[in-house]
Amino acid sequence: MSIKKYKKHEDISYTLGITLTIELLKYKKEAVNRVFYHSKFERSDSFFEVEKLCKKNNVNFELNDKAFNILSDKENCFVIGEFKKYHNPLDENVPHIVLVNPANAGNLGTIIRSAIGFNINNIVIIKEGVDIFDPKVIRASMGSIFHLNYEYFDSFSHYLTKYQDHQLYLFMLKGSSSLINIRFKDKFALVFGNEATGLPDEFLKYGQGVKIDHSKIIDSLNLPIAVSIALYEATKEKFLL
Amino acid sequence: MSIKKYKKHEDISYTLGITLTIELLKYKKEAVNRVFYHSKFERSDSFFEVEKLCKKNNVNFELNDKAFNILSDKENCFVIGEFKKYHNPLDENVPHIVLVNPANAGNLGTIIRSAIGFNINNIVIIKEGVDIFDPKVIRASMGSIFHLNYEYFDSFSHYLTKYQDHQLYLFMLKGSSSLINIRFKDKFALVFGNEATGLPDEFLKYGQGVKIDHSKIIDSLNLPIAVSIALYEATKEKFLL
Repeated sequence: MSIKKYKKHEDISYTLGITLTIELLKYKKEAVNRVFYHSKFERSDSFFEVEKLCKKNNVNFELNDKAFNILSDKENCFVIGEFKKYHNPLDENVPHIVLVNPANAGNLGTIIRSAIGFNINNIVIIKEGVDIFDPKVIRASMGSIFHLNYEYFDSFSHYLTKYQDHQLYLFMLKGSSSLINIRFKDKFALVFGNEATGLPDEFLKYGQGVKIDHSKIIDSLNLPIAVSIALYEATKEKFLL
Repeated sequence: MSIKKYKKHEDISYTLGITLTIELLKYKKEAVNRVFYHSKFERSDSFFEVEKLCKKNNVNFELNDKAFNILSDKENCFVIGEFKKYHNPLDENVPHIVLVNPANAGNLGTIIRSAIGFNINNIVIIKEGVDIFDPKVIRASMGSIFHLNYEYFDSFSHYLTKYQDHQLYLFMLKGSSSLINIRFKDKFALVFGNEATGLPDEFLKYGQGVKIDHSKIIDSLNLPIAVSIALYEATKEKFLL
């Protein structure tokens, strides 16, 4: 099998590094094609852990220095997992995060890490949007992506047609309610726009506009920061149990 | 005057891009040496705004394509501000953020953006730490850095010797209090460790350990996320006025 650089529209992606590859082998083993290791990979505990996980799951664990030239631009990457992109449809009975046209892979990965951290494991992406399996997303998620349910939709109204009874909270600078004052319904969807443009004004027709108050010196909060603060506020009472 | 690549230990740094350079000229004009523009810079409103700010502040506005080869790795950067790094000591009567050994420039910039967003304009860095004037910090701060007071200290105890009456909140995974339950004193310092290692256990001797509750699936929240959630919680009542 030849080795191809990651591409958004192909059906293969990669975990670059030991930690991410271990997470892949533990939580999405059925998606793994094979695992490459580099001749410089020391015979450490990590090495034997990856080797053992591969053996247990009948995954090829192959010495292949060439793969690293093709797939990785980091010098300290000694293990790469190759896997088939997979579908993981949403759970309709729990809260969702909806990202409209997210453009930055690092941001998406950081959002996933926070979402999993606050037990919100379902993310919707409205196209166009970054590929959730971009290796940069996987890296920024610190591997938490393998616990995520996700679905892409061509438009927000397609999402609404399929999932009709989530209470929508539309985060936008023009929101009329402050996050501080919101009492979240059990089954909510937190909706956020693109990094540069935010949600278009027309989204206000769908439900409650919410703002996170901040000083006028900054134009907006960074997207993963805004999503994470909303997640913290929407879930914090669950952590009081 | 020759043009030198940015270096951590030299006393010059740069704003790469129009927006950042305008923020520099507006809010730290006394630090500006000169402003470079590229021959490809269109004669747009932005061009005339920068030109006008330079004229008003007696700053050289010079066509210099070579500067861009030396200082910028982005193709769409057409304006660069050169400035002298400056001191901006802390205000002792207001809350502080204390970062112990922050290592990542993008993270520091994102933290500054959130801090300014929540009106906490004073950041302490305990060395070793990233240079607050690294162009990557400036970029991630979106220019909000020019509203910041900051000080470096060789150790946390040096900070405590100089600023004695801030109530300390030490954010660590082992913290015994949950952020949700904290009632912040008016004059607080939020203390965070390095991205990879967090605060050492010994910091618990200094005051209250605080944790941000999250699921066990992730090891920790991303540092700028944790700082921003703490800032949100510590300041939110001020936004209710």
